[in-house]
Amino acid sequence: MKTIRLNLKTRSYPIFIEEGLIVKTGCLLKNLMIGKDAVVITNNNLRKRFGAKVKNSLEKHGFTSKFYVVPDSEKAKSIQYCLSLINKISKYDKKKQVFLIALGGGVIGDLTGFVASIYKRGIHYIQIPTTLLAQVDSSIGGKTAIDLKVAKNLVGAFHQPRAVIVDPGLLKSLPKRQLKSGLGEVIKYAIIKDRSLFSFLKNNRKKIFSLDKKAIELIERKCIYIKAKVVENDEFEKKGIRTILNFGHTIGHALESACEYDKYNHGEAISIGMICAADIACNLKIFNEKDLDKIIDLIKLYNLPGRIKGVTLNKIMDSLVRDKKFIQAKNRFVLPKAIGKVIVKKNIPENIIRGTILKYS
Amino acid sequence: MKTIRLNLKTRSYPIFIEEGLIVKTGCLLKNLMIGKDAVVITNNNLRKRFGAKVKNSLEKHGFTSKFYVVPDSEKAKSIQYCLSLINKISKYDKKKQVFLIALGGGVIGDLTGFVASIYKRGIHYIQIPTTLLAQVDSSIGGKTAIDLKVAKNLVGAFHQPRAVIVDPGLLKSLPKRQLKSGLGEVIKYAIIKDRSLFSFLKNNRKKIFSLDKKAIELIERKCIYIKAKVVENDEFEKKGIRTILNFGHTIGHALESACEYDKYNHGEAISIGMICAADIACNLKIFNEKDLDKIIDLIKLYNLPGRIKGVTLNKIMDSLVRDKKFIQAKNRFVLPKAIGKVIVKKNIPENIIRGTILKYS
Repeated sequence: MKTIRLNLKTRSYPIFIEEGLIVKTGCLLKNLMIGKDAVVITNNNLRKRFGAKVKNSLEKHGFTSKFYVVPDSEKAKSIQYCLSLINKISKYDKKKQVFLIALGGGVIGDLTGFVASIYKRGIHYIQIPTTLLAQVDSSIGGKTAIDLKVAKNLVGAFHQPRAVIVDPGLLKSLPKRQLKSGLGEVIKYAIIKDRSLFSFLKNNRKKIFSLDKKAIELIERKCIYIKAKVVENDEFEKKGIRTILNFGHTIGHALESACEYDKYNHGEAISIGMICAADIACNLKIFNEKDLDKIIDLIKLYNLPGRIKGVTLNKIMDSLVRDKKFIQAKNRFVLPKAIGKVIVKKNIPENIIRGTILKYS
Repeated sequence: MKTIRLNLKTRSYPIFIEEGLIVKTGCLLKNLMIGKDAVVITNNNLRKRFGAKVKNSLEKHGFTSKFYVVPDSEKAKSIQYCLSLINKISKYDKKKQVFLIALGGGVIGDLTGFVASIYKRGIHYIQIPTTLLAQVDSSIGGKTAIDLKVAKNLVGAFHQPRAVIVDPGLLKSLPKRQLKSGLGEVIKYAIIKDRSLFSFLKNNRKKIFSLDKKAIELIERKCIYIKAKVVENDEFEKKGIRTILNFGHTIGHALESACEYDKYNHGEAISIGMICAADIACNLKIFNEKDLDKIIDLIKLYNLPGRIKGVTLNKIMDSLVRDKKFIQAKNRFVLPKAIGKVIVKKNIPENIIRGTILKYS
C-alpha cells in the first residue's frame, strides 16, 4: 500500500492508495482516535455497491456504523440536505463518539466535509472517494462547501479530513463520461507540475481507459502527491500557491455556470478552460504555440472537448465576473509557461479573454 | 488606550479597550489589511444609537459601510438569518473587498462570526461588542455559532476576528439586567483565575453598578486578559484548558435550556451554576464551605440569583445529558479548588449532581 502523508501540523493526515482498500476501511481507521461511531454519508447507488463492504470492515474493527443517503446529484450539496443531515446526526449522537465518512464523489465529499466542519464546531471525518475526480482532487485538501441558489460553493469551510482512502478498484463501475471528467483534472496536474505525467498520459491512453491497475495507481499517486504538496504550502489559499490548482478553472467554471451545470461536467469544462488559458498565455507571449497544440492534442486524445458549443460569449463573460476567483474585482488567471510549469497573472485585458473564448467557440 | 494582543500565529489579533473607542473604529482598522468595504451587522436599536458613529469613523478613514439589521433577540441566531445575510452580502459583494463588523451583543457576535466563517470559506470580521457579557467574553476567542431547533449553538465554527474594539462607554445605555448578566461572567473569571478580581468585586459594588470608568475598565482588562491567555493555550478547546471557561456553565446551560431560555438569562443561569459547581466541589472535599459561602455572598451582592425557581430537577437533568459538554456520554464539570483556581473533573456521580440541584431549588 502506498501512503502519502499530507503534513499540516495538528491537521496532518494519511492518504492511502491501493486497489481493494475499501474492505480494509476499519483497519485503516482504527488507530486514528477519531471516535467509535461512524456515520457514513453516501447515495443509494453507492450504498448498494459498497455499503456492505464498508460496514463489515468497520464492524470487524470495533466501529459501529449508520448510513444516511442523499440524492445522487449536485442537489445534495444544498443547505436543506446539510441541515437535514445535522438534525439526523444530532438525534443519533447520544452517548456516542460520532465521526463522518464521505463515501462518494465530489458532491458527497464536499457536503460531508462541510457538515463535519460546522456540527458542534467541527468533528472528524474521513473521505472514501468513489470517482477519479474525487480520488485525485476534491477529497484531498479540506475544501468543503455547499451551494446556494446565487452561486455554487458560496458557503463552505476549510476542514481537513483525518484520512483519505483511495481505492482505484471503485472506479470499475464508474460511467465512462465520469472517468473522462476525472482525466481532465489529471491532465491539469500534468500541465501545472509534471511533464513526465504529461508524456505518460500521451503514451498510455489504452491502458488508462481500460483501468489498468498499474497505470491508474501511477497517475493517482502522481496527482495526489502534487495536490498534497501544494496544499501543505498554502492550506488556506492565501499565498497564491494553491491558486495554481485552478489552472483551467477560471473559464472552466464560467462555462459550467453559463450552461447552468448542464451541458458540460467539470472535467469537460476545465478541458476547454485549459486550452483557453494556454491560448491566452500564447497571446501574452509567455507560452509557445507548439505546446498549446500538444495540450489540445492530449485533451482530444482523451475524448474531452476542445471547443465551446451552445453558449454565447456574453453569457460566459457574465459568469466570469461573478466568480469567486475574481478577487477584489480583478481577474486572476493561472497560465502555463511550459508544460509542467504555470504562473498566476492578474488583470488579463478583457479583449484578450474575449478573443480567446471566441476563437474556441 | 490599552491593547491586549491575542497571540495565535497567523490568527493573532488586538483587543483595544478604552471608553470612547467607537468613534475611532476606522482609525483602529485602517492598518489591518482586511478590505475596504465594511458590512456592519447590528439591530435597529443599536443602529440608531451607534450606527452613525461607526459609519462616520469608517468613512473618515477610507472605508465604505453598509448596514444590515437583524432582530434584537436570540431569534437572529438562526439559519434563516444566516442565509439571508449571506444572500444580501453576496449581492452587495461585487467589485468589493468586503469584511464584516459585528456591532452588538453575543447574539450578533456569534451570528456575524459564523457568517464570516462560512461565506466564501471564510472572510475577515471585527467585533464591536455592546454588552458587558460580549465585551469580556463572547466577542473574544473565535467561537461562533447559530442555533438549530434541536439545540442552541449546535452549528458553528472556530473563526477568530481580526480585531475586537471594546468601548466600555457603550454600556451606559445597557439595561441593568443585562449589565448584571455580564457581571455573572466577570465573577466567573474571578473564581477561575483571579482572586484579586474577586476582592475587587467584593469591595467595589457601587462603583461597578454606577459604571465608574476606572472600575469598569479595570475589570474588563482583567477578564479579557484571562480569556486571551486561555484561548492562546487551547484555541480549539481540545486540551482541556479552555474548558475552565465553562465554570458554572454545565448546570447553567442545562438550567437555561430547561427553562427554554426564558426565565434566566445567561449570567443569571451561570450564577446558579457556579454555586452548584462549588457545592459539588465541597461534596467531593476539594473545596471548603467557607469559600462556597464567599461565592454565594458575592453573587447575592450583585443581585444575581442563588436559587433555582420554576423548573423541576428532572427537567434540568434531562437538559444536562443532552449538552454538548457531555462528551462521549461522560459528564465533565469545572470545579473550584480555591477562589482563583479550578480543575476539570469527569464523571461526577449523578446522585451528587441531583443532590446539589435539589439543595438550591
